[in-house]
Amino acid sequence: MPELTGNLLVAQSGGPTCAINASVAGVIQEAGRHEQIEEIYGGLNGILGILNEDLIDLNDEKARVIEEMKFTPAAALGTCRYKIDFRKKPERAARDMDRLFQVFQAHNIRFFFYAGGNDSQDTSLKIHEEAVRRGYDLRMIGVPKTIDNDLPHTDHCPGYGSVTKYNATTVLEVATDVGSMATDDGSCCIIEVMGRAAGWIAAGTIAAKRHPADAPHIILLPEIPFAEDRFLERVRETVAALKYCVVVVGEGLKDVAGNEIGADKTRLDAFGHPVLSGAADRLAEIIQGKLNTKTRTVKLGYAQRAAAHCASATDIAESSACGEHAVRAAIAGKSGFMVKIVRLGSNPYQWTTDLQDLREVANVEHMIPRDWITEDGFLPNEKFVEYVRPLLEGEPKLCYEGGIPRYVALEKSRIEKILPPRE
Amino acid sequence: MPELTGNLLVAQSGGPTCAINASVAGVIQEAGRHEQIEEIYGGLNGILGILNEDLIDLNDEKARVIEEMKFTPAAALGTCRYKIDFRKKPERAARDMDRLFQVFQAHNIRFFFYAGGNDSQDTSLKIHEEAVRRGYDLRMIGVPKTIDNDLPHTDHCPGYGSVTKYNATTVLEVATDVGSMATDDGSCCIIEVMGRAAGWIAAGTIAAKRHPADAPHIILLPEIPFAEDRFLERVRETVAALKYCVVVVGEGLKDVAGNEIGADKTRLDAFGHPVLSGAADRLAEIIQGKLNTKTRTVKLGYAQRAAAHCASATDIAESSACGEHAVRAAIAGKSGFMVKIVRLGSNPYQWTTDLQDLREVANVEHMIPRDWITEDGFLPNEKFVEYVRPLLEGEPKLCYEGGIPRYVALEKSRIEKILPPRE
Repeated sequence: MPELTGNLLVAQSGGPTCAINASVAGVIQEAGRHEQIEEIYGGLNGILGILNEDLIDLNDEKARVIEEMKFTPAAALGTCRYKIDFRKKPERAARDMDRLFQVFQAHNIRFFFYAGGNDSQDTSLKIHEEAVRRGYDLRMIGVPKTIDNDLPHTDHCPGYGSVTKYNATTVLEVATDVGSMATDDGSCCIIEVMGRAAGWIAAGTIAAKRHPADAPHIILLPEIPFAEDRFLERVRETVAALKYCVVVVGEGLKDVAGNEIGADKTRLDAFGHPVLSGAADRLAEIIQGKLNTKTRTVKLGYAQRAAAHCASATDIAESSACGEHAVRAAIAGKSGFMVKIVRLGSNPYQWTTDLQDLREVANVEHMIPRDWITEDGFLPNEKFVEYVRPLLEGEPKLCYEGGIPRYVALEKSRIEKILPPRE
Repeated sequence: MPELTGNLLVAQSGGPTCAINASVAGVIQEAGRHEQIEEIYGGLNGILGILNEDLIDLNDEKARVIEEMKFTPAAALGTCRYKIDFRKKPERAARDMDRLFQVFQAHNIRFFFYAGGNDSQDTSLKIHEEAVRRGYDLRMIGVPKTIDNDLPHTDHCPGYGSVTKYNATTVLEVATDVGSMATDDGSCCIIEVMGRAAGWIAAGTIAAKRHPADAPHIILLPEIPFAEDRFLERVRETVAALKYCVVVVGEGLKDVAGNEIGADKTRLDAFGHPVLSGAADRLAEIIQGKLNTKTRTVKLGYAQRAAAHCASATDIAESSACGEHAVRAAIAGKSGFMVKIVRLGSNPYQWTTDLQDLREVANVEHMIPRDWITEDGFLPNEKFVEYVRPLLEGEPKLCYEGGIPRYVALEKSRIEKILPPRE
């Protein structure tokens, strides 16, 4: 095979994490080591920006900034939720694909790396297949990213270790607080975390539990239909034993009929929209209404996925390694793969990176195995704990300025547009 | 004056913070340096535990644990919201006071330190006055504590620097995340922080704003009546300019009639209780309803006051110094005072501790001066920024175990009860 030379493009997609920039930094740093790669471009706001020919010159950024990017939350290149959707919008998807390859051609993009979750891996697969169909020589590698941890084949997803470290730390701290206020009256605290379909994020807070009486006392997973009576009984028992109870709930908790607990359509606000109370507030209403136990709520929302001040050094290192592996794979001639993390052992924790065919990745959601959850469904078991513990290890050294972290931003030197504007 | 010798009692009260244990550690460490102090006792769960004669021997704790306590969140001795209330419940208050002095007498308590907010300083004053009335030789010193930062005479309150460092860090990180997703559609994020009456906590997040376009873009303070139209206009302008808008709201935000925005009594749940949506969710409903701009919410709740992993080293040092000063003052014969923090300069920041008569402290709420807030009421101004910045400085070195902080717990060796149980 003759050596392919040309320019590199990297972009980010979907919800940000505090590790996704480490993957991009890994791509950039590894790319610098290969002569086959001429220019290193970033696409702004994912595929959407690439369609608009919004490209920046990443070789124009300072080396120090690229290194510090690894510890900076959010998507430094910007991100999007745009999908090239051949199923629902085939005509627009076909036009998008044409435009995308015009941009590739115009800028001689030969290496493309797309960091994202399930949808983005699906987009990567489509682009790879289209390149093959068109006979356009492109090396397309997907880089995994999602706090949801629901990509298949990879042991876990870059981003998951950090969100879990932050959430488990929060549960530990909140429980220490609530426990220190506990009186015979009893009290509850419900902590709502992200996760619509898979409960990996909620389950991960089990890392805060070092002793049987420690919080979290109950974890409600979207996978396990919510049984109100059994839940209330468990809360009652816990408060009777410990005087307090800390519950973690994944935002997508559903009842047996599959309706989200937090999206009660019957409660409308002044505009006729459903009241936005969320799963934690709904559970608090149930506990206060049925058990008369004082209950407070915490809803971490975006704070959890952006909490770079409490990132996992393991996660950052793995995320960066995924970016590096993607470049080496492309240089070695691979295309149509996603990088994955392979666990070699849990104790001591050892890992490496490898490739998985994108056809086996796209549109498959990886859920928590049922036998990693206790029979009653209220907590993950020791199999899960063994899995999750190592992912939280290590604290990155951050720079502080004025008492708060100093994160970096890219200069974003624009690449001159060559094509006419997108229609 | 003949030297007073006897035992020391320290207790914590009200909502915990992540610096209140540093004050207790300061008391214990300083007490160990004075021969006049014989035993060092801790009262469990504040005044409530003392009434129940629930005392522990703090000399029985490991020195290492006392030092690590400084970096451990919540109230290591336990806390309470119990108040000796002569106004509302005079008979019970009189009985409580009798019982309290029986406990003091039985255990020869001659030095009493009570760490807490406004109510606790009021309790400290009452105990001091009662001791004088009874001719019981007691040195009573209040130690300030409250994330609300609303105690008068002290430059700021122990606990405030840490909650502000964590909240400002969170605002910075969430804003980086939301900004990286910003598209022409625009989006909003509302972050709800604590503070029912005073807006110090909400205002403190201004520390995240390093440049004019940085978040927070709007801070809604409980002191400034909520004006929906002007607020919506400001949100609209911000989204138009930046494509996103980050709003911080103090939970106690009120409308012109003084009604809390987040406690809309007209929206009832299935039990007939008001829906617990809170100020942030309410604002999100308003923005989505009136501007049709996608809006997400974060409610930090107890997480903010327990976030020892993101504590301010300045705050911890000051909190500890307040505990030390209390002991030195008592040894010097003072009683009926609260320790306060005195700012000697802001640039460079210099501080010391001093005493304030408890009669000038109790039941006075210190609000943000109006001239520290911009005329339109949407942000604190540079006077506030100069005030708050130094309080966030410094990161304590924490121990980690399994990827999450290791906090300490006291052994709590019980002191044998001497008195009959409280009636």
